[in-house]
Amino acid sequence: MAGTDATNSKHGVGPAIILVAPQLGENIGAAARAMLNCGLSDLRLVRPREGWPSPRAYAMASGADVVLDAVRIFETTREALADVTTVFASTARLRDMIKETISPREAAKEIIRAEAAGETSALLFGPERTGLSNDDVVLARKVINVPLNPGFSSLNLAQAVLLIAHAWYSEAQGQAPPRLPASTPRAATVAELVNFFEHFEEALEESGFLHPPEKRPAMVRNLRNLFQRANLTEQEVRSLHGVVTNLSGHRKRSRKDKS
Amino acid sequence: MAGTDATNSKHGVGPAIILVAPQLGENIGAAARAMLNCGLSDLRLVRPREGWPSPRAYAMASGADVVLDAVRIFETTREALADVTTVFASTARLRDMIKETISPREAAKEIIRAEAAGETSALLFGPERTGLSNDDVVLARKVINVPLNPGFSSLNLAQAVLLIAHAWYSEAQGQAPPRLPASTPRAATVAELVNFFEHFEEALEESGFLHPPEKRPAMVRNLRNLFQRANLTEQEVRSLHGVVTNLSGHRKRSRKDKS
Repeated sequence: MAGTDATNSKHGVGPAIILVAPQLGENIGAAARAMLNCGLSDLRLVRPREGWPSPRAYAMASGADVVLDAVRIFETTREALADVTTVFASTARLRDMIKETISPREAAKEIIRAEAAGETSALLFGPERTGLSNDDVVLARKVINVPLNPGFSSLNLAQAVLLIAHAWYSEAQGQAPPRLPASTPRAATVAELVNFFEHFEEALEESGFLHPPEKRPAMVRNLRNLFQRANLTEQEVRSLHGVVTNLSGHRKRSRKDKS
Repeated sequence: MAGTDATNSKHGVGPAIILVAPQLGENIGAAARAMLNCGLSDLRLVRPREGWPSPRAYAMASGADVVLDAVRIFETTREALADVTTVFASTARLRDMIKETISPREAAKEIIRAEAAGETSALLFGPERTGLSNDDVVLARKVINVPLNPGFSSLNLAQAVLLIAHAWYSEAQGQAPPRLPASTPRAATVAELVNFFEHFEEALEESGFLHPPEKRPAMVRNLRNLFQRANLTEQEVRSLHGVVTNLSGHRKRSRKDKS
């Protein structure tokens, strides 16, 4: 659906919007309306709480049915992101993670650059009440923080989508795409990254590095974040598979069929 | 009732938001929330259709009661604007009027300049269905047009308030540099990095990964670059030493005396 005349950017179709476990159909509908206002149409839902399709989403979309009709549903955030290379997570606060935080406008510029290089992009939003889990934030390259009144910064889900999508729309309208060297290697997709992470963590597990078990989640997150910050290319991910296989004598499992 | 009380007491507090004949209490509440998100608190209503106060406005404000409690009601737009010098009207289209049209960001810059000169400012929004009348638009200096998908440009009232108020807030805050959490641990020194690289490469050498020898220099450079892009912390470098030692069973040689 992305790439049809529902979008009108000259520089690419713009980011997919991924809502993780949204609670209310109304918010999905309002988000769809905000997306189409900003020329976006690729909406993906991970485990919507009220199921799908949602009549209340359609009621709130005020005619943005083209977005809702094309919604895709996923079981996991990882699956929703499988084909995406450039992911930014919208979150109000980071919980004990080292991750670069940028403004909506800076994220918009990075997305436009990435699309000019043939990459695909997505914006990740968490559930209304709790926001994104650490495990989902880890799938993103950087975190977007919308500058807001520190004394009253809680933003409705659809309003967060609107502000960030509109920053993209404004930048895309106002900017010529930057030229990148033709030889820029392809960025790794989330599926490729996660496949490597799992191979790496399995080898670490067997080597005894991920002990004690109660520390494992934080250790794994920290290592994943470290590699996320490197903006790995597909070629580098293949190298890293080789590194792990060679160092550990651990045979790489192919997960390509699962992603 | 308009008069000195109607002015913001300090300069630099941002524009008043004036909603002309809003139809739904919900939209007033959502607008109040968007205002407070962006640090604005001077909300004025001209002939709200459902009367005032509105329980539905409070329900939608999600805690922005400070804005709703201070709402002032006016009979006419002219009275609501009596004390204001710099007025911009939000409208999707001009009906047979010659009026300069600017973006939210341009309007934000003019408001900030005006306030620096001691002026007061306001943003004017029309009723949900019909928008501002020509007589109201005439009271404004210029018209604000939010750039949106021409194929789907209808914006909810509170969303229009949000986008324009947020453009003001962002300009007023200035461009914030990318931030890292306050608890950011110390970055690794070059000595620490090189110590890790050599440990890593020695393990790779022994595992047979760095063959054939003529390819070794490029392979090593690529791996070093990948880790350089991650801006590793000292703590992460220690983790990575542990990873290499565990995966390879290779005893880390201390090179501290050499660095």
